[in-house]
Amino acid sequence: MNQNQQQAFGKYATLVALTDAGTALGLMPEYKSFKVVTGKVGSMDLKKVISSVETAAKRNQLINGEVYRETHALYHAIIEAAEGVTRGKLSVGEVMRTVGLTFSVVRGRPYAEADEGEWIAVCFYGTIGAPIKGKEHETLGLGINHM
Amino acid sequence: MNQNQQQAFGKYATLVALTDAGTALGLMPEYKSFKVVTGKVGSMDLKKVISSVETAAKRNQLINGEVYRETHALYHAIIEAAEGVTRGKLSVGEVMRTVGLTFSVVRGRPYAEADEGEWIAVCFYGTIGAPIKGKEHETLGLGINHM
Amino acid sequence: MNQNQQQAFGKYATLVALTDAGTALGLMPEYKSFKVVTGKVGSMDLKKVISSVETAAKRNQLINGEVYRETHALYHAIIEAAEGVTRGKLSVGEVMRTVGLTFSVVRGRPYAEADEGEWIAVCFYGTIGAPIKGKEHETLGLGINHM
Amino acid sequence: MNQNQQQAFGKYATLVALTDAGTALGLMPEYKSFKVVTGKVGSMDLKKVISSVETAAKRNQLINGEVYRETHALYHAIIEAAEGVTRGKLSVGEVMRTVGLTFSVVRGRPYAEADEGEWIAVCFYGTIGAPIKGKEHETLGLGINHM
Amino acid sequence: MNQNQQQAFGKYATLVALTDAGTALGLMPEYKSFKVVTGKVGSMDLKKVISSVETAAKRNQLINGEVYRETHALYHAIIEAAEGVTRGKLSVGEVMRTVGLTFSVVRGRPYAEADEGEWIAVCFYGTIGAPIKGKEHETLGLGINHM
Amino acid sequence: MNQNQQQAFGKYATLVALTDAGTALGLMPEYKSFKVVTGKVGSMDLKKVISSVETAAKRNQLINGEVYRETHALYHAIIEAAEGVTRGKLSVGEVMRTVGLTFSVVRGRPYAEADEGEWIAVCFYGTIGAPIKGKEHETLGLGINHM
Repeated sequence: MNQNQQQAFGKYATLVALTDAGTALGLMPEYKSFKVVTGKVGSMDLKKVISSVETAAKRNQLINGEVYRETHALYHAIIEAAEGVTRGKLSVGEVMRTVGLTFSVVRGRPYAEADEGEWIAVCFYGTIGAPIKGKEHETLGLGINHM
Repeated sequence: MNQNQQQAFGKYATLVALTDAGTALGLMPEYKSFKVVTGKVGSMDLKKVISSVETAAKRNQLINGEVYRETHALYHAIIEAAEGVTRGKLSVGEVMRTVGLTFSVVRGRPYAEADEGEWIAVCFYGTIGAPIKGKEHETLGLGINHM
Repeated sequence: MNQNQQQAFGKYATLVALTDAGTALGLMPEYKSFKVVTGKVGSMDLKKVISSVETAAKRNQLINGEVYRETHALYHAIIEAAEGVTRGKLSVGEVMRTVGLTFSVVRGRPYAEADEGEWIAVCFYGTIGAPIKGKEHETLGLGINHM
Repeated sequence: MNQNQQQAFGKYATLVALTDAGTALGLMPEYKSFKVVTGKVGSMDLKKVISSVETAAKRNQLINGEVYRETHALYHAIIEAAEGVTRGKLSVGEVMRTVGLTFSVVRGRPYAEADEGEWIAVCFYGTIGAPIKGKEHETLGLGINHM
Repeated sequence: MNQNQQQAFGKYATLVALTDAGTALGLMPEYKSFKVVTGKVGSMDLKKVISSVETAAKRNQLINGEVYRETHALYHAIIEAAEGVTRGKLSVGEVMRTVGLTFSVVRGRPYAEADEGEWIAVCFYGTIGAPIKGKEHETLGLGINHM
Repeated sequence: MNQNQQQAFGKYATLVALTDAGTALGLMPEYKSFKVVTGKVGSMDLKKVISSVETAAKRNQLINGEVYRETHALYHAIIEAAEGVTRGKLSVGEVMRTVGLTFSVVRGRPYAEADEGEWIAVCFYGTIGAPIKGKEHETLGLGINHM
């Protein structure tokens, strides 16, 4: 892989979701300038998963909720991450599944060129399965978009 | 998240793909009994991505290529991971994209109960984008199946 | 494009949805023999969008609600138009989106050959976005089917 | 087609759904060692369709509901069969459709080699259409998975 | 299920694909007025599968290849049947799979009301799997459309 | 619909694709500050459709091909428009279809607030169908993204 360290903010977002912001920063200290928000959500309702991430990102000023382009950029990053979680179905409760997810949202400048501007990464990690404790396996998804 | 250490072999597979088998094992030493295969593949052809993982898994005896159920279990885990990489399209070259991926395949017994048997995890991590160097961003996918 | 004027009843349906039946007919007077129904629907519920079009088409005798083949033809045209609106997800509220749409349904004989019989076009035009006023952008979809 | 009699347990599952277990066994008596469960479900709610099959399979000991890998294997076979029923949408009520289905679940050893172990087939047959009696046509789906 | 015998031409098409036209007619003699075409196709190329059915239907005058509405009706029935075969992916070779299929196409009047006119059913039955003999399982798909 | 004139640059892009830039500007003169590029492409290869739009947009300086975020924004707008054209399949030649399309790409500031910045719209209008002249019907798609 020919990507350099600057670009790998998706890896950083994934490490945050898999472990926590402190551990991820210990492993990748060069990302300390990136803004990070984390949270948890468990639901059979994909709408609730989406709104949990949006609310966390707005409440923590990771995005400006007044500006639609920021909501739009985040929304599509969330949906792309959710495609990984649901693996091609983009449904949870409708197909009799429930999810228990930790999420991270990371915002920053992953490219060296100033013109590339800011980008956003959303990562979900947790479990998906039957709505019965233990009848589940792990799931993961990463979405990336330009702000 | 209420999953215990034994279950998180998908996290282990992801750490292998994000870093390498040695680093992942350093962070999660309790997974040393799990079989691991890794590899790299760059292509506009999803078929080549799939066959690279299958070939690596068979050549390294992670699965028994003579037994169809093992091929079947691996195939669906690969496809689920590819859904995360392509985020709902399951196409690469057909939609004018190219991927450069590191992959890991992990096999073992993530559940405490003997009846749960063996499971397999496939993780892809790398880049996806225009078929021009630098015109790309990161991508990730995880698939899990029972063997 | 090698299509002749007779075929372009999808363009006519689109102009009706973008403007209104009078304006569209002013621009394409040769379509005056085509039956037209229009309406508006705003919802987070795709089911309600579909049933609004069906109800309008039946109430205005654009289709015969007693004959299943007419319902079947219209239904698939609506779904195809909805694929354009939702751009590959075919979900609205489930993925935390709301739509505000104008729709047109046009029925007639777009081909010169009598054997080609009647066809139907459904066009949606409006907005899709977060369930907050102003946090949305335009969306469009066209579906065509033989009656 | 080069498949031999032993493999065609999907055909057997389909004949069970199209007719009944007795008729299917009369036509394919060599499948008497395969376990069979059947049932009926009518709904606009795909979740209810899925849970009806799961409940029938567990209640009749076709799968062991205590073992997650059995639930997981059955779930993916159900979803694959539902893809055939919904033909690429994996939605029922959300897109204003209702289904009336007979289902069969068949479990056994379709391959000659002992290593191939047990497999499961799920077949749905019935009607899909507008939520009005008579405004519907037939639909069918088959899913197959290793246990 | 409240469908009467007249409607079940999809069941008839399925029995033709699972067995042969003679056996199906023996089981369901009331369908002798329905036109039937059958064929076989093996390929990694979905395009070839589609064109094999179209060619067989035109060559045997099951549809009139000069009339676009007949081609259009058949095409969508084929695609719906292919959704069942590929179970939500609508790809074969691109995702490293091959199919070996028997197909049937049935045309007739399944509804008692004259206004419902002619309908078409397409059924595929066969195997899907790795492009290696024996590494495959059964697959099935049914598509239905009004002519 | 509560959208004001400033927002409707998707309607403007659609009118450009349905008619031509001059006619569209005559109908919506307030869009003269928006940059417009148009072109035509006919193919069974979706990759060629995508690259035709990308090449036209770069050659005419509608986007800066050196900046990845501009390529990324345009790419996703193209894919969303292609979802409308293909109505949920995102395939052309693989499913035995060919397209003949006129496309428009429009860039500008559709929102009153300066923070909303630039957005891009891509519209396709033309025909889709069997790879035989006349065996086709109209198709349309619109994609919108923030730059």
